Amino acid sequence: MSSVLSGVKIAVLGGDERELILVNELVKMGATVVVTGFPRDKIGPGAFVVHTVEEACKESEVVILPIPGTSPDGLIRAIYAESSLMLSEKAIQTMAPNALVIIGSARPFLKEWAQVYGFNLIEIIEMDEIAILNSIPTAEGAVQIAMEETPITVHGSKTCVIGFGRTAITLARILKALGSDVTVVARNQGQLARAYEMGCKRASFSELREIMNSADIVFNTVPALVIDKDILKYTNADVLIIDLATQPGGTDFEAANTYGLKAILAPGLPGKVAPIYAGKILADVIPQLIISELSKLDAGLLFA
Amino acid sequence: MSSVLSGVKIAVLGGDERELILVNELVKMGATVVVTGFPRDKIGPGAFVVHTVEEACKESEVVILPIPGTSPDGLIRAIYAESSLMLSEKAIQTMAPNALVIIGSARPFLKEWAQVYGFNLIEIIEMDEIAILNSIPTAEGAVQIAMEETPITVHGSKTCVIGFGRTAITLARILKALGSDVTVVARNQGQLARAYEMGCKRASFSELREIMNSADIVFNTVPALVIDKDILKYTNADVLIIDLATQPGGTDFEAANTYGLKAILAPGLPGKVAPIYAGKILADVIPQLIISELSKLDAGLLFA
Amino acid sequence: MSSVLSGVKIAVLGGDERELILVNELVKMGATVVVTGFPRDKIGPGAFVVHTVEEACKESEVVILPIPGTSPDGLIRAIYAESSLMLSEKAIQTMAPNALVIIGSARPFLKEWAQVYGFNLIEIIEMDEIAILNSIPTAEGAVQIAMEETPITVHGSKTCVIGFGRTAITLARILKALGSDVTVVARNQGQLARAYEMGCKRASFSELREIMNSADIVFNTVPALVIDKDILKYTNADVLIIDLATQPGGTDFEAANTYGLKAILAPGLPGKVAPIYAGKILADVIPQLIISELSKLDAGLLFA
Amino acid sequence: MSSVLSGVKIAVLGGDERELILVNELVKMGATVVVTGFPRDKIGPGAFVVHTVEEACKESEVVILPIPGTSPDGLIRAIYAESSLMLSEKAIQTMAPNALVIIGSARPFLKEWAQVYGFNLIEIIEMDEIAILNSIPTAEGAVQIAMEETPITVHGSKTCVIGFGRTAITLARILKALGSDVTVVARNQGQLARAYEMGCKRASFSELREIMNSADIVFNTVPALVIDKDILKYTNADVLIIDLATQPGGTDFEAANTYGLKAILAPGLPGKVAPIYAGKILADVIPQLIISELSKLDAGLLFA
Repeated sequence: MSSVLSGVKIAVLGGDERELILVNELVKMGATVVVTGFPRDKIGPGAFVVHTVEEACKESEVVILPIPGTSPDGLIRAIYAESSLMLSEKAIQTMAPNALVIIGSARPFLKEWAQVYGFNLIEIIEMDEIAILNSIPTAEGAVQIAMEETPITVHGSKTCVIGFGRTAITLARILKALGSDVTVVARNQGQLARAYEMGCKRASFSELREIMNSADIVFNTVPALVIDKDILKYTNADVLIIDLATQPGGTDFEAANTYGLKAILAPGLPGKVAPIYAGKILADVIPQLIISELSKLDAGLLFA
Repeated sequence: MSSVLSGVKIAVLGGDERELILVNELVKMGATVVVTGFPRDKIGPGAFVVHTVEEACKESEVVILPIPGTSPDGLIRAIYAESSLMLSEKAIQTMAPNALVIIGSARPFLKEWAQVYGFNLIEIIEMDEIAILNSIPTAEGAVQIAMEETPITVHGSKTCVIGFGRTAITLARILKALGSDVTVVARNQGQLARAYEMGCKRASFSELREIMNSADIVFNTVPALVIDKDILKYTNADVLIIDLATQPGGTDFEAANTYGLKAILAPGLPGKVAPIYAGKILADVIPQLIISELSKLDAGLLFA
Repeated sequence: MSSVLSGVKIAVLGGDERELILVNELVKMGATVVVTGFPRDKIGPGAFVVHTVEEACKESEVVILPIPGTSPDGLIRAIYAESSLMLSEKAIQTMAPNALVIIGSARPFLKEWAQVYGFNLIEIIEMDEIAILNSIPTAEGAVQIAMEETPITVHGSKTCVIGFGRTAITLARILKALGSDVTVVARNQGQLARAYEMGCKRASFSELREIMNSADIVFNTVPALVIDKDILKYTNADVLIIDLATQPGGTDFEAANTYGLKAILAPGLPGKVAPIYAGKILADVIPQLIISELSKLDAGLLFA
Repeated sequence: MSSVLSGVKIAVLGGDERELILVNELVKMGATVVVTGFPRDKIGPGAFVVHTVEEACKESEVVILPIPGTSPDGLIRAIYAESSLMLSEKAIQTMAPNALVIIGSARPFLKEWAQVYGFNLIEIIEMDEIAILNSIPTAEGAVQIAMEETPITVHGSKTCVIGFGRTAITLARILKALGSDVTVVARNQGQLARAYEMGCKRASFSELREIMNSADIVFNTVPALVIDKDILKYTNADVLIIDLATQPGGTDFEAANTYGLKAILAPGLPGKVAPIYAGKILADVIPQLIISELSKLDAGLLFA
């Protein structure tokens, strides 16, 4: 497999420890990797370090942006960068034709540019494989916060998991395994049947108020205002709320504060609690994605 | 909730222990239940027993057929019936207008009739809720067969689960919990990520031959010929193959026989290994389904 | 390791599939193995088959009797023997001096002979290692019976485990893993603390009557009459009682019968449900035991 | 139960949050509770707060010292005390005759005094019930440290648990449940059989060096120098060692430091990570212990 990406020029723009692991893997697979937003000594041999986003993007067939992506106006998250890194329209225009741009999730401006300049934009955060693999450090990170922030054990605690998508399934499994009494709150009857199969109690949203009245720890995974003022008014005073939904979360944090309830918004746990694991996920999935997308492109060109 | 189905005429045509539990529940909820295919003494008070499918269907707003459904020409599965029970076109025509027909899965003729006569046909076997709840007795039944048919313990055994849909997820969870070394074979990368999260090994179909060479027990859930002659040729001589896919399963049973391999087709486990549990699922889900469908109908009529 | 038992004469008297696996292992380790109670074609090459217990015992340094041992008057359990196999005082006298006799558990007469004739008698059924390894097929066998004999799933069932020794711990773990609601009844507060840690409910014997009033399946592991007439009088009519304690078990089976309750005495499960696994345990543990005991003897002789 | 300890004078000397919970429970049960080492506002109504150990002990039938006990010269651990709290010989002499002294574990001086002055000394840390219930917060605390101090997930990690007593069993169960690949190192074959039953790998101490060469996280529970210089020389450079054994632990921390290995001594986790839970254990166990011991005493006096 050592030369499977041979001759492919790939730009990596910013990021954190995870991208360092990814860059190593891409180099191993024979790609020509150009990196910006990292000091030279962080990057292993075989990759090129340049100073600007423009230099990195120039003629690249693949451009990789970090999982947390950019700010609404294009500022790239790059914790090791010495100066701020902007994703400019100019840089985008210098990419190779039909370039592939890989990002966690894209802001509206980037989606527009994909239309305008005809590049292939892939948001990986919603890919089933990435989302499920990321659910492991997310769930462990959530449990770690629960352990740190409560004077009780998870074993024997009453926990509530709101929503039952990819992260929530993993979290519920771990909580049950640790000996917690878990109630899953969801709308979908199929999801509730799965929760039941996994040994959890099931409830509908109409029961949430009552459940939070006696829960020790509540984990929200629904990206909509589900833990609102009305719910919080009746919540157990000793509760810990951990909100895992995309910012701004699904909790009325102001109301929680007013009622003196402890509520924590905890986004982006994989990169924080297990950067090496999270980097390995990227190193596993992204090269395969590139190979698969480039082969589609080749196939397309044959018939062009 | 005792009168929520009051005034609704429901026909139950054949079935087994499961329908007995369902009938009791429907009666409790106030429905007028007419049953055929059971002796009088099997049916609790409050339901009417009639002798023919035609009598039962007449003016019924809801007609319930068993989970295993009918033969291709309409013979209804009815283990307690004294004579054979046929679903006739004539009977169907006597149902109330816009009737609701509930069945596990429907043969082509029934789907055609639904078009022709304008009734509402619902196949419940594929509803997420039913399928997941049924996965529990299916998985336990499969494990029971594995325990009965092998001289080894599940603990410490090498098992392989082919496919990773609703039944396979439950089965893999149970096998892991019992201490088996489980390998999941599937195409979908998201499914494989979930298998990994659950502690299973992951493999692609191209590795199946090698896996079956050393597996102790193989469970197939894919309804397509995946365990073919070529795979079986290289399979461990002491293997036990349990095929849970819809008839005719996904195993070349003839080839298995030729090679002296033990292979068992095990369809319809819920009704066999846990009829009371399976009946309770129907008693939980079907009344809700009827209420929901009738309310849609009412809403529709209001605007008609 | 192939010659570690070289020159040691070992007699294997009767037994079942388990002893066949053990004999193979002993031969592999270089022992001179003399077998009786099996037809020639059952025994692999390298072991000698003789016709009488006396012949087998003659000058043997080690004599192995089956796990279920003998009847009170010395009849050896030997399912493949063509004629009945008796352990005679005469045979015992012909063993090598300081011989080692290994048996599951010994009847009083054998213990007396050990005193009289000065041989070293080891009862392995109570060795922690054997008992814990055997708890796995015992627990799986008990679960298999529960699955076969009830129309419900273990998942969601209310089960009760009486006693919390080596077998019960394994059984409770499996039942919890399968999704049962498990209550452990025991006297020892430390055992109850462990049951709690494993996610089970805890109860004292004074609560047993109430628990059995609503339990679906009850597993007894205590070898004393704990499920007596008084308890059975108040037991759930649909209960299944599985008694795993040494014969005659801890259930008043006559009273159970009188009250129409289903109660099953299930001793010796490892040899029945998983003979290959159970044979591998013997093949793992017994050679090590022999090596260890013979080396003690050697050490003793040096200083004699 | 509200007056079961009525008339019994109990002194509580120092401690932390746990003792606050215990004091409340003792008051509820009707005891006359005299506390020292806490400010008045920390103690609920119904208990008396005094300034000196002597005052508290005077005529007390029961004296409760904290779980971490005292220093070798009698300094009592009392995190809320304004001045240092010493257990003096004089105080001990003022207790009621045949008094009961309850402590986590006692220093030699206290054992001597028990002989000299004839009081009943009970060390609860080694009671099976306490040790097993405390194993839950200890194991969760150890996992929390592992999560905090490594950049990987516990899921998929290679962990090693040294020793397999009460704490280690709970820890191994949790690590397995979280998806770690756990190897248990122990001497006792029965303990290793239990580890195998729980799904762990088994190893002897002679294999420890090799195991630590590739382990990600190592948990020691053996209170003897098992992780010595020789072992550490070959240990994986990225390892995290968490030592749970009683101070000074079982790790050569100096050598670990020399080799640049991360090693953490983590004693007394229950009181740190889950004080409320740990306090509830005391509130559950100690009153029962007092009742049981006092009734023994009464019985003894009757026959005196």
